Amino acid sequence: MSSSLPPVALSLIGIGTGNPDHLTRQAIAAMNAADLLLLPHKGEDKAELAALRRSLCDAVLQQPAPQTAGFDMPERRSQGDDYLNQVDEWHATITLRWQAAIAQALENGLVPRADNGVLQVALLVWGDPSLYDSTLRIAARMQPAPVQVTVIAGITSMQALTAAHAIAVNDIGQPFTVTTGRQLREQGWPAGVDTLVVMLDGQCSFNSLPAAQARDVYIWWGAYLGMAQQCLDHGPLAEAAERIVATRAAARDQHGWIMDIYLLRRLPGAAPSGQSSAG
Amino acid sequence: MSSSLPPVALSLIGIGTGNPDHLTRQAIAAMNAADLLLLPHKGEDKAELAALRRSLCDAVLQQPAPQTAGFDMPERRSQGDDYLNQVDEWHATITLRWQAAIAQALENGLVPRADNGVLQVALLVWGDPSLYDSTLRIAARMQPAPVQVTVIAGITSMQALTAAHAIAVNDIGQPFTVTTGRQLREQGWPAGVDTLVVMLDGQCSFNSLPAAQARDVYIWWGAYLGMAQQCLDHGPLAEAAERIVATRAAARDQHGWIMDIYLLRRLPGAAPSGQSSAG
Repeated sequence: MSSSLPPVALSLIGIGTGNPDHLTRQAIAAMNAADLLLLPHKGEDKAELAALRRSLCDAVLQQPAPQTAGFDMPERRSQGDDYLNQVDEWHATITLRWQAAIAQALENGLVPRADNGVLQVALLVWGDPSLYDSTLRIAARMQPAPVQVTVIAGITSMQALTAAHAIAVNDIGQPFTVTTGRQLREQGWPAGVDTLVVMLDGQCSFNSLPAAQARDVYIWWGAYLGMAQQCLDHGPLAEAAERIVATRAAARDQHGWIMDIYLLRRLPGAAPSGQSSAG
Repeated sequence: MSSSLPPVALSLIGIGTGNPDHLTRQAIAAMNAADLLLLPHKGEDKAELAALRRSLCDAVLQQPAPQTAGFDMPERRSQGDDYLNQVDEWHATITLRWQAAIAQALENGLVPRADNGVLQVALLVWGDPSLYDSTLRIAARMQPAPVQVTVIAGITSMQALTAAHAIAVNDIGQPFTVTTGRQLREQGWPAGVDTLVVMLDGQCSFNSLPAAQARDVYIWWGAYLGMAQQCLDHGPLAEAAERIVATRAAARDQHGWIMDIYLLRRLPGAAPSGQSSAG
């Protein structure tokens, strides 16, 4: 059946953290050049995110606008400690759903606009397709393979965080490490860097740092970055951790979802005098 | 004298790597909202960069466009091994030049457009103001202090690199470190990460890795990312290093300047069979 489908070119478009003003000129042009925009649907809680994606489209698409097709995002199986296998299965399922959504659109009469007969399919990716995102790996599984895969960089939550706090991510000439909540919990603070950016952390893993280590750490935290509901906090970790945990839980309850990120920096002397929470 | 100046609000605007299509809607709006755009001039070799910045302005500024004022970028003193002192002196000089350029524009009749009397001054920053950039630190030295400092994120060379190669920066769930050529030469490959992004490297510091370590490393390299003269290369480091050194030298001769970046990833088995250069 797939042999009757036209060749597909994929654009993976970084859209930033949800503010249409994060979109680059390149992203806007690529969205408008697509024949089909594939939009993931992610269960009830994420209705707000779907609405956000829709409003991005409304803000920048010109008539005649590309067709859009939704597909249901599967849940990643989270039982078991075979994390990479879970991810692998999940990517395989998503690939099939993309292919089904494209086939369905063609069946409904979608035809490529370009003279070369190549169907331009675009995917909107939160942040940047290169940073902790699966879209490139899912694209690499498509059968037949796309004739072209184009990546369009977008503003990441890391950048939205440092911009919101008006801070540099690195100390002068110094390295920094970008990591995940899971890594921070399981591996601790990595050797050789004083700055950590922590992403994908649903568990406030900054609390896993030993108290003696946490004492010299400063945190800059942000949630819903770039959106109307943006929350920011910063301070010595010993003082701010408890506050951030509470703010995060309340915001998550209120909105039904949360996306947040933080930067930790060793700043000897960062701890407030008279602190009580470092134990 | 400075007490007669109006209060200043600064916008530090990330402009990406030189392609006007990297500009976000937010960056374009901030450029147009400025009373004064401060543009650095950097000696003969950098004429092409100044022209590029000018063409960015031409691409997006609307009439009545903000005034622009150039200032000569000082050279950083590079003798001595007091790197942080050198940077400190250099930042102090740049701050004075900003202040002089603003004062000169006011003397020439520039008046704030906003009713609140605050002068909106914008600085265009290559990449993102938060990543290996001095502008935030220079802004923090201004006397009197700006009444507001706004940071607008831009596409970094790191993102332009991974987009051009259509690769993810991280392995699934794994951390990565962003560092400088100097750090790589002086500290070697950092512990605990298999992916390094190396910036600010004028010396092809990938050649400083011990051969036994370099053997398992893959490199993705790019120069003039996002511009018409973009160069890309990738391959097992043992095979690609020599080629990249030659390409880089030739391109630098041709253009009079170069900006490049690369990503190194440990990929056991990356070395080509029959390699001869790993010694």
